[in-house]
Amino acid sequence: MQRVEPIYEGKAKSLITTDDEHILIQRFKDSATAFNGVKKGEFASKGETNNAISTHLFERLEEAGVKTHLVERSGPREMKIRRLKMIPLEMVVRNVVAGSLHKRTGLDEGTVLEEPIVETYYKKDELGDPILADTHVRMMNLLSEEELLATKLLSLKVNDVLRPIFEAAGLVLVDFKLEFGVNDGGEIILGDEISPDTCRIWDRKTERKLDKDVFRRDLGDLMEAYHEVARRLEV
Amino acid sequence: MQRVEPIYEGKAKSLITTDDEHILIQRFKDSATAFNGVKKGEFASKGETNNAISTHLFERLEEAGVKTHLVERSGPREMKIRRLKMIPLEMVVRNVVAGSLHKRTGLDEGTVLEEPIVETYYKKDELGDPILADTHVRMMNLLSEEELLATKLLSLKVNDVLRPIFEAAGLVLVDFKLEFGVNDGGEIILGDEISPDTCRIWDRKTERKLDKDVFRRDLGDLMEAYHEVARRLEV
Repeated sequence: MQRVEPIYEGKAKSLITTDDEHILIQRFKDSATAFNGVKKGEFASKGETNNAISTHLFERLEEAGVKTHLVERSGPREMKIRRLKMIPLEMVVRNVVAGSLHKRTGLDEGTVLEEPIVETYYKKDELGDPILADTHVRMMNLLSEEELLATKLLSLKVNDVLRPIFEAAGLVLVDFKLEFGVNDGGEIILGDEISPDTCRIWDRKTERKLDKDVFRRDLGDLMEAYHEVARRLEV
Repeated sequence: MQRVEPIYEGKAKSLITTDDEHILIQRFKDSATAFNGVKKGEFASKGETNNAISTHLFERLEEAGVKTHLVERSGPREMKIRRLKMIPLEMVVRNVVAGSLHKRTGLDEGTVLEEPIVETYYKKDELGDPILADTHVRMMNLLSEEELLATKLLSLKVNDVLRPIFEAAGLVLVDFKLEFGVNDGGEIILGDEISPDTCRIWDRKTERKLDKDVFRRDLGDLMEAYHEVARRLEV
């Protein structure tokens, strides 16, 4: 497999085409950004750690029947992925109140939800990734009604698979963000990554934050937290 | 009917109890506020004008079979209303892109929607009245699934009645906010007010703003705009 050219340069990852038009390389960077790019940092080994955690979790999801874009881990900070037409939404699954859900509802951080919820955000940096109601998704024709339902259902399925994996590792999967894409056959496939960059993960006993909130809120050593997640998940 | 005591002091209205426990006086003030109370002003005759417009529109809605809290206009700036247990949501119906819908979607202001949409906001000043998805409404048990559907349906029904009334007056009803309450029988009833304080109203030909945006954005003489709406609606 020959790499051809970079086609996407994101805040924490880049994408590189290959000589197979259906396959891309997803490269994890050491950069961290928060607050829509306002806060920035570099953390040695972050790319490698997130690649390892993401690959591991995608493999567990595949075992449970959830299709992901992962082909294989192809290097310390790279995975080979299937090329998808990405849906411009961020699906956020929440098990416990934190972050914007606390600000939106006034419910205390740490409140365990009676059942998980799925929120939909518009992936548009220039708009600040605003939350959307279903009516906005339909209004803008971002997804059909069927695709929206399927995407929410898949998000909850991912949660059903991941939540016990984290629990068994003494971790609480508080919330996480997923991105989906559509393959040539019109199937909705999980893309992007699942890592402490895109999840809120708390230690079950101490509620210590082991995710990007450590960076957002200056709570300590970011990589120490990420390595702890990797270690506990036996990545 | 004896008035007894004020029970609610809002930014633009106050409520006064009467010797009939089922009846309140809703009093329209001359104050205007915007940006969650940050910008303030006083406008002579605003209370009277909004009372006149609201009464008129509630009467038209009642004629069309939409139940409202209006009993009767009981003074220049007062209406007698049925007491309701208010639902802590603001239902916003939109026909044309403006304001936060423009910011959320990036669609141009003035874009006519293919069909009207209903948004749901949490009426909580201390949280800044955030938008809610249906999943948040259900999660917080603010409404049952049936009540949520009924409230949205009523909002669209109000739009079906009002939109042609504005159109016949050479006005575009761009968007508006409604508040509902529940009566003793468990019925959902339209409360609050419908006025240029709670609607976006544009002149159909010139797109001149004839609503509270004149105050929000310093676009000219607020009361001249409100009086124009009252005149056109033949209030």
